[in-house]
Amino acid sequence: MKNFDFHVPTKIIFGEGTIPQIGNEAKAYGKKVLLVYGKASIKKSGLYDKVIASLEEAGLDIVEHPGVKPNPVLSHLHKGVEIAKKEKVDFVLGVGGGSVVDESKGIAAGAMTDVDPWDFYIGKEDIKATLPVLTILTIPATGSEMNNSSVITNEETKEKVGFLDGHLYPKVSILDPSVTMTVGPDYTAYSAVDAISHLFEGYFTNTAGWLPIQDRLVEGLVKSIMESTEIILKDPEDYSGRATFMWCATLAWNGLCIAGIGDFAFPMHLLEHPLSGLYDIAHGAGLSITIPAWLTWMLDKDTSKIAQFAENALGINKGSQDRKAQKGVAALKSWFEKIGSPTSFSAAGIPDSDIENITDFTVKLAKIWGMDGDYTRDKIIELFKLCL
Amino acid sequence: MKNFDFHVPTKIIFGEGTIPQIGNEAKAYGKKVLLVYGKASIKKSGLYDKVIASLEEAGLDIVEHPGVKPNPVLSHLHKGVEIAKKEKVDFVLGVGGGSVVDESKGIAAGAMTDVDPWDFYIGKEDIKATLPVLTILTIPATGSEMNNSSVITNEETKEKVGFLDGHLYPKVSILDPSVTMTVGPDYTAYSAVDAISHLFEGYFTNTAGWLPIQDRLVEGLVKSIMESTEIILKDPEDYSGRATFMWCATLAWNGLCIAGIGDFAFPMHLLEHPLSGLYDIAHGAGLSITIPAWLTWMLDKDTSKIAQFAENALGINKGSQDRKAQKGVAALKSWFEKIGSPTSFSAAGIPDSDIENITDFTVKLAKIWGMDGDYTRDKIIELFKLCL
Repeated sequence: MKNFDFHVPTKIIFGEGTIPQIGNEAKAYGKKVLLVYGKASIKKSGLYDKVIASLEEAGLDIVEHPGVKPNPVLSHLHKGVEIAKKEKVDFVLGVGGGSVVDESKGIAAGAMTDVDPWDFYIGKEDIKATLPVLTILTIPATGSEMNNSSVITNEETKEKVGFLDGHLYPKVSILDPSVTMTVGPDYTAYSAVDAISHLFEGYFTNTAGWLPIQDRLVEGLVKSIMESTEIILKDPEDYSGRATFMWCATLAWNGLCIAGIGDFAFPMHLLEHPLSGLYDIAHGAGLSITIPAWLTWMLDKDTSKIAQFAENALGINKGSQDRKAQKGVAALKSWFEKIGSPTSFSAAGIPDSDIENITDFTVKLAKIWGMDGDYTRDKIIELFKLCL
Repeated sequence: MKNFDFHVPTKIIFGEGTIPQIGNEAKAYGKKVLLVYGKASIKKSGLYDKVIASLEEAGLDIVEHPGVKPNPVLSHLHKGVEIAKKEKVDFVLGVGGGSVVDESKGIAAGAMTDVDPWDFYIGKEDIKATLPVLTILTIPATGSEMNNSSVITNEETKEKVGFLDGHLYPKVSILDPSVTMTVGPDYTAYSAVDAISHLFEGYFTNTAGWLPIQDRLVEGLVKSIMESTEIILKDPEDYSGRATFMWCATLAWNGLCIAGIGDFAFPMHLLEHPLSGLYDIAHGAGLSITIPAWLTWMLDKDTSKIAQFAENALGINKGSQDRKAQKGVAALKSWFEKIGSPTSFSAAGIPDSDIENITDFTVKLAKIWGMDGDYTRDKIIELFKLCL
């Protein structure tokens, strides 16, 4: 096992009926809140009214910043920073999915500095301080509600970049699975793929050797995500399924499963970011293309970990190591298709002929993420060919 | 899944060579530290010198409170509180195993009040504030380094009582697996049993229904604890074995595995506390007696969860549900014996004839813990008969 620090200070309040706790939690962080959210959906569902009522009951002043897009964009983040500064808000409350939470974090960081927050994303500047961030999660997938990560798309340059910083942990996140019952089958599928992808990067790319507990955490989470996804797709109102899915998605990317695994890479995310950045498809929809591609490419290199995964998470225990690995990749790809997430460019509406342009963006991101040594242009092209 | 709050603010610094970080971490909490530890072992190993050097380099004033006993006692805790108050220390640093950490927490609570800290343990008073607690762990087992629990024995009344309070989370815990290489085979075995016991209480006694991820966390941790224990017993200097064991023991009782399981009971601990309280045996040595006893007693009531455990954690997948459960309990008991932890009163040097007296103490503890409805005197006697 490798050395690590583990410090996840976020307070999670989990369960049915917990939304009205937000006012009481929030008032510990000041008097004036910037309420960040997406489109009309939280108004339609009644969630917006519940949140406002609780904040008002706690005596808080509310400034709103609606209109966060899926794959949140830098210009909207800039606008949020402007409002936060002008209104001198004390903290930020994001109500929505990972996009809303990610943009809320970016606003909280931007509000405390004169630096362009984009410089934090591309590693040009370090965060010195942020406003406190609280969240109410409506779509479980990214894990942003309990982690130190944020991803933003710069729509001018078309770059989609994520980064990690200890200041980005939310103070409090409320997770009410019943709020997620309106998430449709498409986003349920994309979210499942997203959560699984967070587990895969560390699991498949670390070089730390024997990691029995970390591996079992990942295998157990993947199995539980797959089971609960199938339950939700059958019955969208199954509370146990929604709750299991929601908590698994949080645990998948809150630092628990990577504690002790040392350095690892993000090849599946590296290949995906340009897809959702350029074509505005859901992040999970892009990942269900790039995950099987990367795993297929690995089948020629080293099948040991893929075979272990196939056996422990998918119950594939017959045949040679290579055979188990091959069956495992095929089974995973089929499962992505079965739940309705695309596994090829064409299935996602991405023209095969764009492969060179997509590769240009990937090469650029590989440089920002320090992966350009391993992921050369040739290798990236080779991988994208497996996405066609 | 049941509603829950999850908030574990402890910062974990894990790995070889991390001890010298203590000074830098500690100075954030004040100028004067109460250094709590046990006997000579940390001096012999050189750990004491390393800690003192780091604290002095950070410019801290050090007041010492050595002599914590395994199964730490109230009179020594009282003495620590007296010193902490007289010397006006800013925070407490416990260097040792779970006993040292537990007493450090009790001192930190006692130092901020005129109430007898024993009243916190027996639920007569609530903690309002504590001094910050930092820890350097030398024996992984109790999980106290990352949880809100403390256990103390009142040597006058012979009561051994534990309690939970959100104030009791350490601020920082340093876990260096190489420090644990001197833990002998006896305490390695007792620690393994202790860590497993923490996983079992919630796993076997919750009534929340379908809990796929919580169950898999427990099963994965038990398997990893068993594997790493065997590695350590073969080669005490195997770093990977020590590191895996150490991290698993922390995760076994830091709130992760019980998040969402709702109410659960502590029957195996209820039966054990009087054993280590009265006979001063290691807590783990008592648990390896009470765990198989309680599970054996359960074989007549409900075998479903025991069979699940036998299958998923021990690989026992042949036969009926009852048969799998029976085999599972037998296999676990054999494993405890194999690693050198006692599974009966006589093996631990406890006279069978003391059963009535032990039961008196257990009945009293059942009342303090609110378990006296389920665990009547008759039932307790019946359970202890399975320990003979």
